[in-house]
Amino acid sequence: MFEQPLPTLQRDGDSVRILDQTVLPFRTETRVLRTLEDAAHAIRSMQVRGAPLIGATAAYGVALALLNDGAEEATLAHALAVLGATRPTAVNLHWALDRMSAQLSPLPAADRLQAAWDAAEAIRADDAATCDAIGRHGLALIREIAARRPGPVRLMTHCNAGWLATCGAGTALAPIYAAQAAGIAVEVFVSETRPRNQGLLTAWELRAADVPHVLIADNAAGLLLMRGEVDLVITGADRIAANGDSANKVGTYLKALAAQAAGVPFYIAAPHSTLDFGCRDGAAIPIEDRGAAEVCRIRGTTDAGEIAELALAPAETRAVNPAFDVTPAALIRGIITERGIVPAGELARLYPEHER
Amino acid sequence: MFEQPLPTLQRDGDSVRILDQTVLPFRTETRVLRTLEDAAHAIRSMQVRGAPLIGATAAYGVALALLNDGAEEATLAHALAVLGATRPTAVNLHWALDRMSAQLSPLPAADRLQAAWDAAEAIRADDAATCDAIGRHGLALIREIAARRPGPVRLMTHCNAGWLATCGAGTALAPIYAAQAAGIAVEVFVSETRPRNQGLLTAWELRAADVPHVLIADNAAGLLLMRGEVDLVITGADRIAANGDSANKVGTYLKALAAQAAGVPFYIAAPHSTLDFGCRDGAAIPIEDRGAAEVCRIRGTTDAGEIAELALAPAETRAVNPAFDVTPAALIRGIITERGIVPAGELARLYPEHER
Repeated sequence: MFEQPLPTLQRDGDSVRILDQTVLPFRTETRVLRTLEDAAHAIRSMQVRGAPLIGATAAYGVALALLNDGAEEATLAHALAVLGATRPTAVNLHWALDRMSAQLSPLPAADRLQAAWDAAEAIRADDAATCDAIGRHGLALIREIAARRPGPVRLMTHCNAGWLATCGAGTALAPIYAAQAAGIAVEVFVSETRPRNQGLLTAWELRAADVPHVLIADNAAGLLLMRGEVDLVITGADRIAANGDSANKVGTYLKALAAQAAGVPFYIAAPHSTLDFGCRDGAAIPIEDRGAAEVCRIRGTTDAGEIAELALAPAETRAVNPAFDVTPAALIRGIITERGIVPAGELARLYPEHER
Repeated sequence: MFEQPLPTLQRDGDSVRILDQTVLPFRTETRVLRTLEDAAHAIRSMQVRGAPLIGATAAYGVALALLNDGAEEATLAHALAVLGATRPTAVNLHWALDRMSAQLSPLPAADRLQAAWDAAEAIRADDAATCDAIGRHGLALIREIAARRPGPVRLMTHCNAGWLATCGAGTALAPIYAAQAAGIAVEVFVSETRPRNQGLLTAWELRAADVPHVLIADNAAGLLLMRGEVDLVITGADRIAANGDSANKVGTYLKALAAQAAGVPFYIAAPHSTLDFGCRDGAAIPIEDRGAAEVCRIRGTTDAGEIAELALAPAETRAVNPAFDVTPAALIRGIITERGIVPAGELARLYPEHER
């Protein structure tokens, strides 16, 4: 089992401690969540981010709500509503809240708080185990390439779908960590992922784990794929529709197009909690717009090491900032879940219990 | 004829004055070039940028060399070599130097300096006229869309191919300025263009010209095209091979892929000086790598309005930073030159004098 170098999320008595990802990779700081609003704020402000981690944080948020505000049905309903409205695209959030609701609603109020902590902890543990399974399945793909040609297997990813995005090893990065553990040489092209630069989180993760990697501007992905410098593209996902269309961090679709044009296999790695069989196809997935400020301003560190922000464009600049895009199933060679790898159009085969 | 709001490049007695594009859009400052090395530095450091403007600056650089170092054959040869080595991809540089060489070499040394100034000025004037013609031809495409549907024509561009990139109206933006002058409503999606953010130059140009525009992260282009929010994509180019494959700012290829997938026409606008009939196809175009620092650091303004730089990733981060990519002719609906618009594969029809 993969052990997180630092826990992304853990219960700490009557509170929950998170790694604050708004100051990473520049600072390693934790925050303590004590209330429902703390948890909702952590998700909205992206102190926690990554579809699986958002889901687990929401689950703990329910426990914090019951702890502070009583375990009545109304408190539970309010917590579910507040947390459910924090971010629209990652369906793991709703999966976790639905699971909490299903487990807590039938119980007498007196039993709900303990059950909420237990259910949240189960979601966390389930996510960690799921990541490990994704890593094992994805490792087979990397092993196959390593057997076919000399030199390191050259992977490309987008955004951060590593341990920082989950309660375990990550999704897209889990096979990469598994390959490293298996002694297979890899090299990872890490895409900056504007506007929020989550690629810098991926570079930070990989550096800490001694995984060779190369940072690139998002724009460079097409040329590298065209030149034959990439063997395999793996990204995470925030919501996968029944037909396999997959919403992930904006820019993923462009990589999938370029991978297809270059004949390079493009895979999505995601846990069951990212599947939304209630969404027929990608067009039904709500896409969050996060506003102009993320495009017009940027955070980094000064030469003195202080975190600082700069304006790139005047504050009055109009910008559209969709946080996700949709990669059609036809561009996805396969989806790597904890149950195995299937073509994007055949998800229901792995999850017959969800078939409608 | 389009009049540049500020001259990008102009002779000023025995020197040449340029707009310093390394501090734009944050500051409007000019620099004075007095020597060959000043001109070479201006091109290398991207104080001047944009394929047509690079060519014209190199031409003036030859005049500065002859002025300071004498007009002997050896001085001329040295100037051509130094300037020719500044940047590898934009072929306009070599086109301008070849033209200077062809005009100056046969002359007696005593006549060369005046001829160099005249030839550089002719290149500048030719570029301005060329931009106007590109604008007129491209306008027809915009007019056609405006006639077909209500509302503003929604264009997308990449990098900066406006007046800042040329000695005139620009290439990709020339049709947009022409449309505005013709009273056709337009709206322009401006892609940030990491890592050097030349999209911010485009936003600055369009703001100054009152052209409605929307800034986007490069990653957002795919979703906007997929959603049907864009009518037409036009970019510039740095070198167009004989078969129509076109090198332009890195990320252009990704937009071309997404435009094709969405059925949105993708055009390249470029002057004759960008055509390289000596390059059979895109694989023969040299692609500049500009090093890790451009990816790991970023420039913007503090809240106090000072220009400042921040680190995004540690200086030791490995990065690859190709400044250009190649869009295959098959993805290009047409190339807009001063002679008209042709399918990318039929360039030789417009330029029979170059056919080999």
